[in-house]
Amino acid sequence: MEYTEEILVERATNTKIHDVDFSNLAFGKIFSDHMFVCDYEGGKWQQPKIVPYQPFSLEPAAKIFHYGQSIFEGMKAYRDADGSVFLFRPMDNCKRMNISAKRLAMPEIPEDYFMNGLKELLKIEKDWIPTAEGSALYIRPFMFATGHGFHASPADTYKFVIAFAPSGPYFTGKVNVLIEEKYSRAANGGVGYAKAGGNYAGQFYPTHLAKERGYHQVIWTDDTTHEYIEEAGAMNIFVRINDTLLTVPTSERILDGVTRKSILKIAEDEGIAVEVRKIKVAELIEAAENGSLMELFGAGTAAVVSQISAFGYKGKDYKLPELKDTFGARLKKRITDIQTNKIEDPFGWRVKVC
Amino acid sequence: MEYTEEILVERATNTKIHDVDFSNLAFGKIFSDHMFVCDYEGGKWQQPKIVPYQPFSLEPAAKIFHYGQSIFEGMKAYRDADGSVFLFRPMDNCKRMNISAKRLAMPEIPEDYFMNGLKELLKIEKDWIPTAEGSALYIRPFMFATGHGFHASPADTYKFVIAFAPSGPYFTGKVNVLIEEKYSRAANGGVGYAKAGGNYAGQFYPTHLAKERGYHQVIWTDDTTHEYIEEAGAMNIFVRINDTLLTVPTSERILDGVTRKSILKIAEDEGIAVEVRKIKVAELIEAAENGSLMELFGAGTAAVVSQISAFGYKGKDYKLPELKDTFGARLKKRITDIQTNKIEDPFGWRVKVC
Ligand SMILES: Cc1ncc(COP(=O)(O)O)c(C=O)c1O
Ligand SMILES: Cc1ncc(COP(=O)(O)O)c(C=O)c1O
Repeated sequence: MEYTEEILVERATNTKIHDVDFSNLAFGKIFSDHMFVCDYEGGKWQQPKIVPYQPFSLEPAAKIFHYGQSIFEGMKAYRDADGSVFLFRPMDNCKRMNISAKRLAMPEIPEDYFMNGLKELLKIEKDWIPTAEGSALYIRPFMFATGHGFHASPADTYKFVIAFAPSGPYFTGKVNVLIEEKYSRAANGGVGYAKAGGNYAGQFYPTHLAKERGYHQVIWTDDTTHEYIEEAGAMNIFVRINDTLLTVPTSERILDGVTRKSILKIAEDEGIAVEVRKIKVAELIEAAENGSLMELFGAGTAAVVSQISAFGYKGKDYKLPELKDTFGARLKKRITDIQTNKIEDPFGWRVKVC
Repeated sequence: MEYTEEILVERATNTKIHDVDFSNLAFGKIFSDHMFVCDYEGGKWQQPKIVPYQPFSLEPAAKIFHYGQSIFEGMKAYRDADGSVFLFRPMDNCKRMNISAKRLAMPEIPEDYFMNGLKELLKIEKDWIPTAEGSALYIRPFMFATGHGFHASPADTYKFVIAFAPSGPYFTGKVNVLIEEKYSRAANGGVGYAKAGGNYAGQFYPTHLAKERGYHQVIWTDDTTHEYIEEAGAMNIFVRINDTLLTVPTSERILDGVTRKSILKIAEDEGIAVEVRKIKVAELIEAAENGSLMELFGAGTAAVVSQISAFGYKGKDYKLPELKDTFGARLKKRITDIQTNKIEDPFGWRVKVC
């Protein structure tokens, strides 16, 4: 595909950057000065633009309010000691966005619109990239239906946006999770493998119920039997039994996480024994009981690795051992060091923007 | 709950009603002059308002664009020959809206806010109710997350809206459906029983694939085995085998349709043999082959009854007989006559508004 049109840039008249305490950032609460926007109309993507971050005006009958056509991505930008700016495997997010788009009957965004929009916006906003430990510029590409009407059918117009939020860590501290026995996040033949808005809304209530019982997150299980673990909240799940690192294969119910596949590659590179296969809850319980369950962690862009300290199942709680050196911490450090240009990147994942 | 606050009414300065061809209406494409709006903030529903139908202004980080917190209802208002205005079982929609709200971790709307808002708006917009055969004022209550942030968690603010669209028939003519073998609309333990936006977005792509093969709609099957029929597009499904009318029990995967339960009641009242039980695809095929399959129809507010003329399954097409008198047409007529105040309503379903 060719990038035939220049991006039109409208600069903000003043910056909000001086109001931001970059050493004390929450996750995804503050937004940078500009955003990238491109509208889809008449079967074509229109003029791509970078404009000041500002509200959208939408008809009450816009399909985003009624029929859930909304997809998104999550990625990060990093700045090294020299001030150079990097992305991490951005084409994977672009490709996954288009996988999501297809499943939700939304138009695919041309790769050059996505990548050039992202890079140009980053060049303009590079001072918004925090450098404190655990912080990064969180990048949110998203697309939603703007076309309107109450007929339950795909919209004819869409908006694609990239917005930035300088962010601190997603979770702070170790988490305590509940293995879900009743609710599910995805159906066979459903949209679980897509980053579709509706998948997240469906998780909130079961997560709320888990929180009321003292857990931070839910471990999702398959919706047919609830016997197999699938994801950890909005992260992929890893299990360490003795010295083997296990994770579940991706499927139509499970998101193909960039962090997950990066961890698999790094683990292999470091000589850690890895198995990608279905994991029964019963196997976890058995391993917890016989002392071979060493670690459990979630993996995703927001938290990178989120170590789990205990899990609940059928009214019983199982503690994970407190190890000094965890696979989780080691893998997180290696990924983060690659992302922030502190070490060599033998995998070709880092993309220098400027 | 008490209705403590008056509705604040801001009238439109002029009406669009004279531009509308009421004898030639599409479904859900034209909107009346006013809408009912109520915002949820700080843990409370705020001042309910009736305002001119107009766009909403929303932050790019508003959670509706990212995490799919959106629910809706669909109902209709009718005008009889004397100009009186009626609703049909409106409390059922209100209750179902709150069932949806709970599952999506959204605030429930007080019944009096819903009902009074709806009735007051109807009084103002009563001239927008079409009276042509097959037409009605389609009513769309909906709620979505306005609170913002990129953290995957429920929003703290929401907007509840009721908008009106004078509408003609949803489907025109008989439909040809495909029994789905691969895709699904709902998971066990998922949100299928809620009128959540995300459920509809997930249906569009499989429906598009079915359309490419010459079908109008998809018959959804259970996601575990695809052996049981569940819904007909965005309608509940009815099957007539010989002289027995069958429908599937509602479940966590199936919407508890107002039309479905009204049809069950009327069928019973008319002495039609009714069975509510699971229905295997294999049973449909067998009945089609041995000539006992008489009718197949979808039931929902938009189309009331949508008669199916043929269905496809595993590459084969099965035709339904062309009957002169169908249960579908008879039940549709009785419901519609009750809705439009043409006949007695022994069930107490009709609610006179003004
Ligand atoms: C459901 C779900 N699983 C897994 C992930 C992890 O994917 P990634 O590593 O690409 O961020 C995400 C996103 O963060 C997610 O939303
Ligand atoms: C999935 C689904 N099933 C069934 C129905 C029928 O419900 P009702 O008769 O209340 O309109 C609807 C809504 O129209 C629906 O969206």
